[in-house]
Amino acid sequence: MLQLQEGGYGLLKNCFFPESAAIIGASTDPLKFGGRALKFCLERGYKGRLYPVNARHDVVQGVPAYAHVADLPEAPDIAVIAVPAPLVRENLVAAGEKGCKVAIVYGAQFAEAGGQGQARQDDLLRIARDHGMRMVGPNCMGAISLASGFVASFTSAPEHHDGNGWPEAGAVSVASQSGAVGIQVFAQLRDRGLGLANWISTGNQADVDVADAIAYFAGDAATRTIAAYMEDASRGLKLCQALERARLSKKPVVILKVGTTPEGGAAAQGHTASMYVEDRVVDDLFAQYGVLRAGSVNELIDLVAACEAGVVPSSPDVAAVSVSGGGAVMISDAAARRGLDLVDYPQDALAALKERNAFVNDRNPIDISAPSMSNMEITGGHLKWGLERNLPTMIGYISHVPLVPRTRSGIMPQLLKFRDAHPGQLIAIAANLHPEDRSALVKTGVAVFDDPSVATESVAKLVRAGQAFEKPPNMPTAPGGFEDLSDALAAAGITLVTETVVDDAGAAVRMLDGPIVLKLSASTLRHKT
Amino acid sequence: MLQLQEGGYGLLKNCFFPESAAIIGASTDPLKFGGRALKFCLERGYKGRLYPVNARHDVVQGVPAYAHVADLPEAPDIAVIAVPAPLVRENLVAAGEKGCKVAIVYGAQFAEAGGQGQARQDDLLRIARDHGMRMVGPNCMGAISLASGFVASFTSAPEHHDGNGWPEAGAVSVASQSGAVGIQVFAQLRDRGLGLANWISTGNQADVDVADAIAYFAGDAATRTIAAYMEDASRGLKLCQALERARLSKKPVVILKVGTTPEGGAAAQGHTASMYVEDRVVDDLFAQYGVLRAGSVNELIDLVAACEAGVVPSSPDVAAVSVSGGGAVMISDAAARRGLDLVDYPQDALAALKERNAFVNDRNPIDISAPSMSNMEITGGHLKWGLERNLPTMIGYISHVPLVPRTRSGIMPQLLKFRDAHPGQLIAIAANLHPEDRSALVKTGVAVFDDPSVATESVAKLVRAGQAFEKPPNMPTAPGGFEDLSDALAAAGITLVTETVVDDAGAAVRMLDGPIVLKLSASTLRHKT
Repeated sequence: MLQLQEGGYGLLKNCFFPESAAIIGASTDPLKFGGRALKFCLERGYKGRLYPVNARHDVVQGVPAYAHVADLPEAPDIAVIAVPAPLVRENLVAAGEKGCKVAIVYGAQFAEAGGQGQARQDDLLRIARDHGMRMVGPNCMGAISLASGFVASFTSAPEHHDGNGWPEAGAVSVASQSGAVGIQVFAQLRDRGLGLANWISTGNQADVDVADAIAYFAGDAATRTIAAYMEDASRGLKLCQALERARLSKKPVVILKVGTTPEGGAAAQGHTASMYVEDRVVDDLFAQYGVLRAGSVNELIDLVAACEAGVVPSSPDVAAVSVSGGGAVMISDAAARRGLDLVDYPQDALAALKERNAFVNDRNPIDISAPSMSNMEITGGHLKWGLERNLPTMIGYISHVPLVPRTRSGIMPQLLKFRDAHPGQLIAIAANLHPEDRSALVKTGVAVFDDPSVATESVAKLVRAGQAFEKPPNMPTAPGGFEDLSDALAAAGITLVTETVVDDAGAAVRMLDGPIVLKLSASTLRHKT
Repeated sequence: MLQLQEGGYGLLKNCFFPESAAIIGASTDPLKFGGRALKFCLERGYKGRLYPVNARHDVVQGVPAYAHVADLPEAPDIAVIAVPAPLVRENLVAAGEKGCKVAIVYGAQFAEAGGQGQARQDDLLRIARDHGMRMVGPNCMGAISLASGFVASFTSAPEHHDGNGWPEAGAVSVASQSGAVGIQVFAQLRDRGLGLANWISTGNQADVDVADAIAYFAGDAATRTIAAYMEDASRGLKLCQALERARLSKKPVVILKVGTTPEGGAAAQGHTASMYVEDRVVDDLFAQYGVLRAGSVNELIDLVAACEAGVVPSSPDVAAVSVSGGGAVMISDAAARRGLDLVDYPQDALAALKERNAFVNDRNPIDISAPSMSNMEITGGHLKWGLERNLPTMIGYISHVPLVPRTRSGIMPQLLKFRDAHPGQLIAIAANLHPEDRSALVKTGVAVFDDPSVATESVAKLVRAGQAFEKPPNMPTAPGGFEDLSDALAAAGITLVTETVVDDAGAAVRMLDGPIVLKLSASTLRHKT
């Protein structure tokens, strides 16, 4: 299934919005590995039918339980297989025989553990395929939907902040190969005041991978922004098809693709058995589809913050306003480096502004200068003036103004009205803010950052996505037979030399009559090139 | 004074540790522009002699005041000139005549405002020089020392967090051309649990500039790490001399140099009348002296966090431990990209580790894998195992482990002991932490980050500084006559084409007989190249 299968990724709906779910290995202890999914579903008010499967208890956490999957009164949409690795196989078979559409397998010690583990994983995959069932994992942390309240995960992140660790229900959907990194994204989105729709950890990706999740989120009504952490980009055609679906839906996709170096690639192989792909290939592919590429978890969060303002400009024109010349310089540098255009203003508009503030440095970025800390009428007024230029984007830098009580009370009411008054413009504010002010501002649809350089660079990446959104549809297809990255790249206009895998070198020589590059593949070799 | 003058920068001691200070324009209202410095000095317990100067009150904020500077009972070490711009000149003259060693001038509308302002600023500079007095500003936010309690600034940052806006007294000294950016640094250091020693805003830098401050901090006992925001690097010889002093003192210097593009350079000229210097020249110069160069305010804070651990390794060898394969990949990528070496471990040590944790991925970075969230003996033990490799640096990624109450209570006591047990190693931890845990960990001498990529890149930049610290002394000197950047670069082994400024093109042609590059300079031109 190295192409996207419409019925296939469509089944992921059952990871987030199932009507019924079996939790196999559901524990009576809500803190245990097997007890958490049930606890979370109850806590989040999941409205579907829950079937705990537990051989020793008739009731689990207050919910009637069943000794075996076979005993369930219906075929549940999803089976959460929360049992230790040695018990996974029999339960996956049972879920398949019952007619589940999707199974989530938490257990580790599969492909990431090498040869024997790979064989065990191949076996699971065959079982899933034989029953027409999609499988998430193994070696994953499950799926979470704050849109439906269905939480099939053993994460302990909800315990953060004295048990108030859930993000608000929102519009960001996350797909991560790594559970721990995915949960760091979950926590940092929350702490930035960004709301979560759906979250999935794909682990070893025997079947369901990040591309499937992106394709699903592209059509999911709860999702506005898609964020992903990927170690493997080798299923290139599928990935391109998923990205094209997101692009056609005009949903920005932010991706932290790691394993960018051969050393990182080797570490990724040990983690999720991911294959190393030259990073410039990934870069080209992402650029093609307007992906906002992040270089770190922190940058991923910043880019999501830009996307979540809900406006994706395709024009590079920007109006910038800064309380300080320093901010103006940083915005100018980042804009020039990333291709944003700080447009020139008409002289008469600048002259009128100068009449209101003799200190103003009347260029773009506007530097409010001295009055910016003393008179919030002027500070807010200049930001408003920037908005009224009616450029697609306004970037404002207001440093620590919203942390000082007397300036905070003057500026916040003004900022909170900006987006309603200018619904079609992207408004990015760089400032040090109280968390509650930041959340309130984010809720109005303003993109909020600490740092003016980061704000500007994030806007620039979003504009690239906006430009990609304007290109005509171009769904890549497999040219027949080939189903790997090189095909996808060919479909996207990038040519690679032909690659194939053979068991002995003689076979390769017989296939070709030109020069040959051999790449050895064996679990006993650490460096393969 | 485009070379560093020992007596000159030495006088900056009076900005931070004066024995006596006049505050000219001291207001009875502690919230007013002119009232804050006095309020802050009283609040921070400054022990020197304070002389408010106020023509209308005998007592200001409880301190006996004087009508004129001339009336003071002694020549104060420093005069803080907190009066509006039109009154600056006469008060600067009075401070000079009284025998003050340094004057701080807040007022704006000088060189940054163009021709007339430049003339007014030149006049101030001449007055200061005539009296052998150093001048900070104009167009600056003054100086702060948490080491002495002397605060000559009108910043409102101490009002943050319900009036608890001061950072802890610590070992970071900050020099910033921009007041607003400097205060953002002040606030973000505080919010990361990093302590402040001294802080200075140099504004238009008519006299004292960031290079003077770096040179002073290099010899200041309270300072361990120097952080700077610069718009102007054109006084290159002076800057090189200052950086060489810091290097010889083995104090890391983190610099956010902006105006990296012609567009940003133009904005910087409008802000602090700074001159644009090609950015690759700045890059080369910084590399020469082991400067940790930041690309944003956020990165500046991260780099300071690395420096403040108080260990500057010169070897690129690193042991890394991660709770997740994803962290291991990100650390591997960043290490490979930035020249850190994740050394191979002996097989027997890895085998012993594997006996304690069957899930461990036994390479460098160690991936603790499944037990990392369930058993803090194992998680802490693996981090300790990494430290016990006795490599100069250990990087640990523990994601959200310290945010979950039951894992927090298991891991934090272990982390807090690491540095005492391994005083000579650089320990960098990437994790999501409670602010109080982060502060406690920082206090033990651990470098703390959110993000594993950022942690690794910050360590790599610090190692470059450590390598620069090992080179022999090489104080650059002016080769005679020339006192500008090209000389400093020549002293540092970098050759540029000869540059000069002429009023008409004919003069240039007469001076040279080779090809000529003309660069026009006039206030009416926006783009000059």
